[in-house]
Amino acid sequence: MSSIKNGRRPTARDVARVAGVSQPAVSRAFTEGASIAVETRDKVLRAAKELGYRPNLIARSLTTSRSRLVGVAMSYLENPFYPAMLERIAAILADAGYKVLLFTSPPGAPCEPLLEDVLRNRVDALILASASITSRFAEECSRAGVPVVLVNRRTPGHRTSTVTGMNEDGAVVIAERIARAGHRRPAFMAGLENASTSQERERGFLRGLVAAGLPEPLRVVGHFDFERARSAMRALLALPKPPDAVFCANDYMALAALQTLHEESALRPGRDISIIGFDDIPAAAWPSFALSTFSQPYALMAERVVARVLDQLRHPGRPAVEDVVPGSFLQRRSSRPVRA
Amino acid sequence: MSSIKNGRRPTARDVARVAGVSQPAVSRAFTEGASIAVETRDKVLRAAKELGYRPNLIARSLTTSRSRLVGVAMSYLENPFYPAMLERIAAILADAGYKVLLFTSPPGAPCEPLLEDVLRNRVDALILASASITSRFAEECSRAGVPVVLVNRRTPGHRTSTVTGMNEDGAVVIAERIARAGHRRPAFMAGLENASTSQERERGFLRGLVAAGLPEPLRVVGHFDFERARSAMRALLALPKPPDAVFCANDYMALAALQTLHEESALRPGRDISIIGFDDIPAAAWPSFALSTFSQPYALMAERVVARVLDQLRHPGRPAVEDVVPGSFLQRRSSRPVRA
Repeated sequence: MSSIKNGRRPTARDVARVAGVSQPAVSRAFTEGASIAVETRDKVLRAAKELGYRPNLIARSLTTSRSRLVGVAMSYLENPFYPAMLERIAAILADAGYKVLLFTSPPGAPCEPLLEDVLRNRVDALILASASITSRFAEECSRAGVPVVLVNRRTPGHRTSTVTGMNEDGAVVIAERIARAGHRRPAFMAGLENASTSQERERGFLRGLVAAGLPEPLRVVGHFDFERARSAMRALLALPKPPDAVFCANDYMALAALQTLHEESALRPGRDISIIGFDDIPAAAWPSFALSTFSQPYALMAERVVARVLDQLRHPGRPAVEDVVPGSFLQRRSSRPVRA
Repeated sequence: MSSIKNGRRPTARDVARVAGVSQPAVSRAFTEGASIAVETRDKVLRAAKELGYRPNLIARSLTTSRSRLVGVAMSYLENPFYPAMLERIAAILADAGYKVLLFTSPPGAPCEPLLEDVLRNRVDALILASASITSRFAEECSRAGVPVVLVNRRTPGHRTSTVTGMNEDGAVVIAERIARAGHRRPAFMAGLENASTSQERERGFLRGLVAAGLPEPLRVVGHFDFERARSAMRALLALPKPPDAVFCANDYMALAALQTLHEESALRPGRDISIIGFDDIPAAAWPSFALSTFSQPYALMAERVVARVLDQLRHPGRPAVEDVVPGSFLQRRSSRPVRA
């Protein structure tokens, strides 16, 4: 075969040289429907194969001003809800001919510099999971013509599309179930104080408790972190009068609370005390946990997110949409059933 | 501000127009150390800010023939080991100025078309987790000048760098522990038959059992899948003489086996029977499981992987390296301790 210096990436020029054709001919050979003589095209393809050359889609994208890259910013990959959704988003985007440019950030870290980063990489669109966005940045994105879709987060007052679960209404349902199960001392375990999901779930929980004539809940903060959720549960159990029902702002913290109960308390979940989460991650259904929860169907959410992204790419002018994906309460063994 | 049609991305030409300078001046203004008059530069930066224009790093990368993108191919995101490693890899690459182009594929699916895809996106390098690679493809990558590093997989006989845990030696240690704990009826739960990790762990387990004078293990296949691992455990428990020690090819399957035992058997883990995994995923240490396992330090593995990628980018000629990251046996409650 013709020699290319070890490691150097073969270029269109190399292919032209080996095929004995012009460089434009090489590019035509790799362009759908371009006019080129069959034998010229064959020469080019043979040379390309020999050299291991491939047309560069990123270079091509500049002419169409499309990178076919969608930036996905995500933290909390230790919470199984996010990798599960990420996997679905990547698969659906791939079917649509887009690739995922992944940006991770530590939980609660400001995502602004990271987003700056995203724009500099010229992504076609931006999906932000478990991250909020400032109005200044939302404005910058719309100026730059980069559609943004928030998943599992909302930023009130911004013109940014969102896909979320039934955070507030789901929490109202949870409060009703707790009341109808005969509980009298509810508690709420918050996630990160500045996370809209935690705020909305708490708001719905309070609304539901009031409607059911129950007192304001005891309150601890688990920061969406496993170990901090365990400490928060210990704090509740150490109270002179511990709660008889704990709603945790997500399943991941609820699993921590449930295990702390198993290991460090005589209270039996589903009998003496109810532990309820939010999300329905796979582990919630594991036999050791059987966690009652309100579901957020991540596969459906992923479909809606990608559909929204593609829609905004096709119709840049379209106004932002707040898409709420339906979920439902799942009664499992970690919480007391509603009384007949 | 000067008007740009809604949604259209501002170009260098727009900036030149608004700033009243030439287009080359715009590009010089955004190029480190390029010669340009201070006031011209200021004009450009003001116009760029006004329009929300950013220099396009991908376009720039073509002149340096570097996309600053590293393709990461991964499946099994439902196994917490992989998202944990992915998060570390992305963070370390970001520090080095690289971004992750994520490719996911269903467990066990052939990754050849996916990899073709990777090359067409002109990534600088390729990290393959939980995926093997054919010699033909390895050859294509080296021709294309794209370094490839396999994580947690090995492909014997190929010139491809790998970063793995102590699969075979770790499994030997597990066999020794089982023997010294007084077990007599070992069993092995395989993952996917064609996965090198499962093969190497089984090989080490057999070697260790023989050395310890124990019989060949009973054998079931869990396919690295939670539900199939539960069925495989049920099959073992249904035997006239069930095993007294089960080594599962990874923690994820071991957690399924452990819970099946809890729910469906009178055998007490750590007393009547030992369940042992491999990886040390976070959930292995959860109080409900306390799974004995052999650790694969994913953070360290991620560091080694990125270091290998950067090394191969700097020195394309370098031969492939097989890097084995040390781990250790972790005695928890799911297995019987060694007898004094």
